[in-house]
Amino acid sequence: MALLLRRLKDCTSFGSTEGDLIPTTPRVTTSAGDEPVATVIDGKSIAEEIRSGIAEEVCRMKDTIGKVPGLAVILVGQRKDSQSYVRNKIKACQEVGITSLMAELPEDCEEDEVLSAVSSFNDNPSVHGILVQLPLPQHMDEERILNVVSLDKDVDGFHPLNMGNLAMRGREPLFVPCTPKGCIELLLRYGVEIMGKKAVVIGRSNIVGMPTSLLLQRHHATVSTVHAFTRNPKEITREADIVVSAIGVANIVRGDWLKPGAVVLDVGINPVEDLSSEYGYRIIGDVCFEEAVQVASAITPVPGGVGPMTIAMLLSNTLDSSKRAYGFS
Amino acid sequence: MALLLRRLKDCTSFGSTEGDLIPTTPRVTTSAGDEPVATVIDGKSIAEEIRSGIAEEVCRMKDTIGKVPGLAVILVGQRKDSQSYVRNKIKACQEVGITSLMAELPEDCEEDEVLSAVSSFNDNPSVHGILVQLPLPQHMDEERILNVVSLDKDVDGFHPLNMGNLAMRGREPLFVPCTPKGCIELLLRYGVEIMGKKAVVIGRSNIVGMPTSLLLQRHHATVSTVHAFTRNPKEITREADIVVSAIGVANIVRGDWLKPGAVVLDVGINPVEDLSSEYGYRIIGDVCFEEAVQVASAITPVPGGVGPMTIAMLLSNTLDSSKRAYGFS
Repeated sequence: MALLLRRLKDCTSFGSTEGDLIPTTPRVTTSAGDEPVATVIDGKSIAEEIRSGIAEEVCRMKDTIGKVPGLAVILVGQRKDSQSYVRNKIKACQEVGITSLMAELPEDCEEDEVLSAVSSFNDNPSVHGILVQLPLPQHMDEERILNVVSLDKDVDGFHPLNMGNLAMRGREPLFVPCTPKGCIELLLRYGVEIMGKKAVVIGRSNIVGMPTSLLLQRHHATVSTVHAFTRNPKEITREADIVVSAIGVANIVRGDWLKPGAVVLDVGINPVEDLSSEYGYRIIGDVCFEEAVQVASAITPVPGGVGPMTIAMLLSNTLDSSKRAYGFS
Repeated sequence: MALLLRRLKDCTSFGSTEGDLIPTTPRVTTSAGDEPVATVIDGKSIAEEIRSGIAEEVCRMKDTIGKVPGLAVILVGQRKDSQSYVRNKIKACQEVGITSLMAELPEDCEEDEVLSAVSSFNDNPSVHGILVQLPLPQHMDEERILNVVSLDKDVDGFHPLNMGNLAMRGREPLFVPCTPKGCIELLLRYGVEIMGKKAVVIGRSNIVGMPTSLLLQRHHATVSTVHAFTRNPKEITREADIVVSAIGVANIVRGDWLKPGAVVLDVGINPVEDLSSEYGYRIIGDVCFEEAVQVASAITPVPGGVGPMTIAMLLSNTLDSSKRAYGFS
């Protein structure tokens, strides 16, 4: 994602999706009149709770078998956003006692150098998770590189075999992709019933939208996937009990896109110009928060909603992977 | 699928789904008044056309490189319906010049015997497609057996890696499962636009419903999947431009489940008692044909709709696989 900044009026703009870039406190609108105001789902606190549980488990593992989980990250090139995501992931590892290893390669390196970095992490028994930070430079075959990541270290869950097992009933993927897993975790922890509910997922990317649809369906929601070719996204979204937006268009989901009482998870991470901010920009979601909070029963803010959960789930997947590798339970 | 027969009044009953069992001519209702009557999609003719094209390709392959495609079928046990399906598949192979091999194993054989049959077909260079007829006997681990089928011979497309590649944008599965592929082929050949249309798939089985949803989404439809936990299937289905029913419940989709002008593909194959028939039963679909034909713009009959397409697509996948194996184009 390029940090493409655009001027915007409130509740109209464009952007893209990933883990939170700049953690700041969301602005929660309070109602002026008697209108209902949604519960703001505190992803940051829940993610902290989860991370603290992971830290305890890592301690227990270290005390019991003298081992800790290890996560390896491969970063190619100098994209500021990618560097920031990677930094956040490594910092999060350190905080819970997961060892992190990093391979940094220049933008113009050969594909074979990336492949060889992956292979070396595949062969390293103290590495239990391997992340290739996306996007890779244009000249590289992303599919070829991701296919080389050992299946039992694919903590991102992006391997097609993992996706297939996520799609198929009666099968279990080794890893569930982090952002979708984080979304479901938020719903479960806030006691939102999924089974039998109508869910709309806006966006169908391989890393968020599509696996979120599959995962909601595994939880027996009736899922509709809305995307760029959908003719009446507003009408379809307005029927949903649960809305997950992961399309990377700032403020596209307005208040009148929502059924009163809907639960809204906003995966969008869209940088918009804000000269009053220290960085000259701020991050907003796909959902027009000020409007949605008046209609929804619960909503995630951006930042501080789904974003922190993504990293917590990455740590959780890495811990699970190391437990599998060491036969530790 | 057991050939479980139930008495039923018109447009109410239960059953299950697979390829056509008994090819008979469907009863097409003609309108008494000015009501619109749907085009009946002639899957049988289209499948014949496709099979005839395949036969020509097999001839050309034989003339050019002296090879023909080969399909191996593994049948475990004595289920009448499975035997019938397998017989139809083998007959279809013979008609287009595809060599068929068959391994028949007794109901009480060991799982290892099935695995060894699969392995031997995996190693046989004249076999380009391997079918394990489902369901397998209860005591067998279906997942374990299907996982052994060589990926490049998985003409059913049931391997999770194939499913994952079907789900992911920018990826190509080696094989698309036959019934979903047949459904799309019918839509394309009848000039039904898919992109941007609202599609509802009723059922989410690994072999039909789920991959059909994924495939419709690959063609840029806005897809909703309806299943046993869906609370208002009628209302959801009534919004669809394209309805694919693969839930195996006879006549569950009534006329008032359909939007006027919808295109309806009926994958259901439900045996119901019919003492006037030679076999004592007849096959009906998931859709109440007599009602639906008055509402839809186009509809597949049962039998003679999607069923024949399934076998045609199996032959097509086997041909494609052999072309890949021999580098023949």
